[in-house]
Amino acid sequence: MKKVKIALLGLGNVGRGVYIILHQNKEEIMKRSGYEIEISKILVRDLNKNRGVEVPEDILTTDFEEILNDDSIKLVVEVMGGIEPAREYMLRAMEAKKHIVTANKMLLATEGDEVFEKAEEMGVMFQYEASVAGGIPIINGINENLTANKVNELYGIVNGTTNYILSKMELEQLDFDSVLQEAKEKGYAEADPTSDIEGYDAQYKLAILASLAFGTKVDINDVYREGITKIKPIDMKYASDFGMSIKLLAIAKDDNGRIELRVHPTMIPETHPLANVYDSFNAIFINGNAVGDLMFYGRGAGDLPTGSAVVSDIISILRKNIEVENQNPIIRNNLWEKQVKNIDEVESRYYIRVTVEDKPGVLGQITTIFGSNRVSLKSVIQKGRKNDESHEVALVLITHKTKEALINDSIEKLYDLRTVKDIENIIRIEDFN
Amino acid sequence: MKKVKIALLGLGNVGRGVYIILHQNKEEIMKRSGYEIEISKILVRDLNKNRGVEVPEDILTTDFEEILNDDSIKLVVEVMGGIEPAREYMLRAMEAKKHIVTANKMLLATEGDEVFEKAEEMGVMFQYEASVAGGIPIINGINENLTANKVNELYGIVNGTTNYILSKMELEQLDFDSVLQEAKEKGYAEADPTSDIEGYDAQYKLAILASLAFGTKVDINDVYREGITKIKPIDMKYASDFGMSIKLLAIAKDDNGRIELRVHPTMIPETHPLANVYDSFNAIFINGNAVGDLMFYGRGAGDLPTGSAVVSDIISILRKNIEVENQNPIIRNNLWEKQVKNIDEVESRYYIRVTVEDKPGVLGQITTIFGSNRVSLKSVIQKGRKNDESHEVALVLITHKTKEALINDSIEKLYDLRTVKDIENIIRIEDFN
Repeated sequence: MKKVKIALLGLGNVGRGVYIILHQNKEEIMKRSGYEIEISKILVRDLNKNRGVEVPEDILTTDFEEILNDDSIKLVVEVMGGIEPAREYMLRAMEAKKHIVTANKMLLATEGDEVFEKAEEMGVMFQYEASVAGGIPIINGINENLTANKVNELYGIVNGTTNYILSKMELEQLDFDSVLQEAKEKGYAEADPTSDIEGYDAQYKLAILASLAFGTKVDINDVYREGITKIKPIDMKYASDFGMSIKLLAIAKDDNGRIELRVHPTMIPETHPLANVYDSFNAIFINGNAVGDLMFYGRGAGDLPTGSAVVSDIISILRKNIEVENQNPIIRNNLWEKQVKNIDEVESRYYIRVTVEDKPGVLGQITTIFGSNRVSLKSVIQKGRKNDESHEVALVLITHKTKEALINDSIEKLYDLRTVKDIENIIRIEDFN
Repeated sequence: MKKVKIALLGLGNVGRGVYIILHQNKEEIMKRSGYEIEISKILVRDLNKNRGVEVPEDILTTDFEEILNDDSIKLVVEVMGGIEPAREYMLRAMEAKKHIVTANKMLLATEGDEVFEKAEEMGVMFQYEASVAGGIPIINGINENLTANKVNELYGIVNGTTNYILSKMELEQLDFDSVLQEAKEKGYAEADPTSDIEGYDAQYKLAILASLAFGTKVDINDVYREGITKIKPIDMKYASDFGMSIKLLAIAKDDNGRIELRVHPTMIPETHPLANVYDSFNAIFINGNAVGDLMFYGRGAGDLPTGSAVVSDIISILRKNIEVENQNPIIRNNLWEKQVKNIDEVESRYYIRVTVEDKPGVLGQITTIFGSNRVSLKSVIQKGRKNDESHEVALVLITHKTKEALINDSIEKLYDLRTVKDIENIIRIEDFN
């Protein structure tokens, strides 16, 4: 059996998963990769931290140079996350002709070009399956298995924290704040949950997925982003009345070379496969012009699921001939220039919930505004007063498909009406057709 | 741009899909594969048949030798199906150093060893993604992306015809015969639907999937098989009452090296992702010891979805260096010897529907039989008489988990009771835990 030495950069959640899998499934991994894999060094910040796994002390180091200068280490696994020093370490490891496996979505979504180009320049292999949707093989799915297709559309539930929160809100009729609190206590949400609940995490992931699916470079700033904090139990209730679920979707569409990139809460039909993705599970639904509809579903986070993706990347590299210098791997498929649509140009149906004065003629005023903006309403629901003293009622409008700019125009005019007390929420509706 | 010539064996449904995709997505395929692909020959039985696609007459041939002896043809795509002459043609093409892409589940499930060995012997590449579940990349998913895992369990809805029939029966409360008739008219079922409705098609596919998932050889005769013809609307109704759906599942489990392989109608919780796979869609749900639960969902048949898998296999071969002779591809992972459990040894919960005489003491007789066989009943439901004249009632029993042998024993004894008129149906229940 051939032997190979590898190093880990980082021993947090994902690093622990990689360490456990390489030991627990050692026999399977040896047979499938053709190599006995030795983790010869692990870079950590604190040698004495408890990491929930037994690691021999002598392989821990706080000094990256020890790994860099060890020519017997052929492959470096970056699982520290964040931009720096991960970026610097990867670049220098590649310059030293070491192959790279990384789980770093933030780096790839923002500074991906530089590391991809370095890999190509140095002829080293560079794999990053774990950077999006944890254990779900969506990166290789797109890069290797959908190559016969033009991808038309991609819809992802790619953030487990928000899907957990929305699932709880839907199934147990709870409000956002209390579910977030519970998620924090259970470890499903971080102490500072901003990156998850405001959609930044999904934004990174969509940038990576869309760039692969459409074969184009994606600037993270071109991805429109909205979080889930504005979703109220009453919106869940209305959604359910309409036969819909609310999910935080990462959406990418290719409209004849002009692409849409957006992350926002979305009402989807409850019969759609994505509507049945609950708890912290992730799923990516793709439509290709040959394959039709395809969905990948699984664990988007966690030490072992994410570790599964990292280790399969390691095995994938070892199965190629790593003894040959100057590999010529296909690392990216950035083949086309595509123009990104502004969110104003996006077409969708919309759910609009407003609070209005309970007076005759109000409904007429409102529908007139939408009509004059060429927004066609599919249904209008007026609910009774909250109580006898209240002079306000809730109005829920569902539009037909229309340009977002026209919705925004209409909303602005609604605010001018004295009878309109508040625009409570606007949620895009996706019909998948 | 480099050029490569390929040949198709067969121009039926899948062949047409491959032909259309190679033309329609030509630009994408060129950029991703690095090759301009020319279909230089297509083997057909009848030169004059209308195939629903425009093909230049001069590339059609009825003579396989023309393809075999053309050294400029580097890759042969076998989409004719069936054992012979597909087997002979593939073996001879490999002997002539041509790479192979095939969609032939029947051949791989029954005579796979011979063709895999030939590919290894000749150092040619051999890809077969399209052989199971059409456009769903489950073969590469297991072979390339789950390599870090021990696969514990695999559950597949791998036959679109039966899933279409069961979906219709469930959602529209129709009976089997009328849905089958409609499926034939719509082209979802063949004139002779035996292979689908009796589970043979699923049996082939499970043999292939299980051999990959568990890294072992699977004899098709070791796969237990039951079709869906015995499912009645009343069973669907009871299932729904219990919060379950009925699906034809292909099930493979690895119980510490002893494996289960079985295809049969199965009651599953309606909240499980597989329960929401409707119509002719396929899905494969896998549990790995690192990745946890993972599901792949998509189109299991059809010219373009299956063609998508075939063409992605072609691209995958072209991305390797096909100019190098004697490739050393990893074609199989038949690494372990595993023992297959007899169906008698399988443990499951069971749904048992019987018709009994409406007499005092009958229920007691029946529960006594199960009790004496150590089968514990979870629930017993007795429905009233069909009408006043009937002296028979329906009894539905749900067991706790038990060995199949004990169920069979109990059933035999039930038949001896004069009060038991008929054992109407027995359906296994899968709880996924």
